[in-house]
Amino acid sequence: MTAPVKYFFDFVSQPSRALYIIFKISGSNVENIPVALRRDEHLMEKFRSEVNRFQKVPCIVDGDYKLSESIAILRYMQRRGEIKDSLYPQDSHKELSKVDEFLEWQHLTLRRSCESCFRMKWLDPILGIQREADVIEESQKMMDLNLDIIENIWLKDNSFLTGKSLTAADIFGACEVEQTKLFGYNAAKNRPLMEAWLGKVRSETNPYFKEAHVFVDKASRRHKVFVN
Amino acid sequence: MTAPVKYFFDFVSQPSRALYIIFKISGSNVENIPVALRRDEHLMEKFRSEVNRFQKVPCIVDGDYKLSESIAILRYMQRRGEIKDSLYPQDSHKELSKVDEFLEWQHLTLRRSCESCFRMKWLDPILGIQREADVIEESQKMMDLNLDIIENIWLKDNSFLTGKSLTAADIFGACEVEQTKLFGYNAAKNRPLMEAWLGKVRSETNPYFKEAHVFVDKASRRHKVFVN
Repeated sequence: MTAPVKYFFDFVSQPSRALYIIFKISGSNVENIPVALRRDEHLMEKFRSEVNRFQKVPCIVDGDYKLSESIAILRYMQRRGEIKDSLYPQDSHKELSKVDEFLEWQHLTLRRSCESCFRMKWLDPILGIQREADVIEESQKMMDLNLDIIENIWLKDNSFLTGKSLTAADIFGACEVEQTKLFGYNAAKNRPLMEAWLGKVRSETNPYFKEAHVFVDKASRRHKVFVN
Repeated sequence: MTAPVKYFFDFVSQPSRALYIIFKISGSNVENIPVALRRDEHLMEKFRSEVNRFQKVPCIVDGDYKLSESIAILRYMQRRGEIKDSLYPQDSHKELSKVDEFLEWQHLTLRRSCESCFRMKWLDPILGIQREADVIEESQKMMDLNLDIIENIWLKDNSFLTGKSLTAADIFGACEVEQTKLFGYNAAKNRPLMEAWLGKVRSETNPYFKEAHVFVDKASRRHKVFVN
């Protein structure tokens, strides 16, 4: 049996959760190695030199080969035969490119804006960082705009983001949206397609979705947002 | 002969230039269709309904199939047999994943910060938008940080971003860096590896690099930055 790929992650990181769920569903041959970002484990010299020169999670080490960036890791693991075909479908290159389109789109739109809101509304208060109200409001507007694009464009004619069935795009997307619960936001409110989609992604990926979101769900409860 | 893929682009857009150069080097079967962003051609209803629902460039239309997001387009065209193999090498999946790693990394780092500086220092003054000095300074710092990561990490042991030869990663990276000339910035200053790398990317991709940068070079001259 081939040695497992070492998978470094933290459940507080959205793409870390997405890959964790994808690997679980796929039965990938990985060794899970949690990295506690809150204890700055990723900033240690040993982590930089032996795991990831960019000092972030998620990342993998496969023998002496190191790779970072969640989408690059997904593609590497697919070529290594470790990803369930339906999640990143190779049969139809048109369908596959639609999954790629979402995975590339989300960086500077969904991820950028949800991450920015998460920092300003959840992390900054913990760290004692103060921001101007209009900067926070601008960040909220950008997030709403991108969540509306998911509702009105991505989900317009599809039950999943890129078609009629669950792919890696849905898992990455849902893990990002789920993070907004942490600061008391309910992304599904007034977005019926988003609500239905989130429900389907959760049910098709459980128990792993739930497992990966234990921290998010627990930390969200103080906001009384509906926790699934 | 197969009908060409329609390629919609504007040379003012960094990823538009990168794909243009990649298609030219590869001899891809594409029909080039310029879209004038300055005249809001991408915001027309016809463009939205017939070309790209997200109303951005670059994008392609292949028969009745539409695709946006430059990196997704690169992969689609590769699978269609339209990309020169050395630019997106399929032989070694470890080398290919290093190209993917850069292409995924750049979105929220290099592209985000250079684009932000470009908007604040070039576009906003044209549009009459005023920003606080500290916001512009913060943006400049983020750009410098990411350019330093290219100098100190990506180019540390390599003459190109992901190895010893030119790939799509270098072309996307260089087109982004080149944009900074527009606001009088010299990314190669005090970055000797960056300077050597930019020179190699330009010489290996000319005459197409020059052709794609005619506007950038022309508009940069008023800043007296060295234009290649």
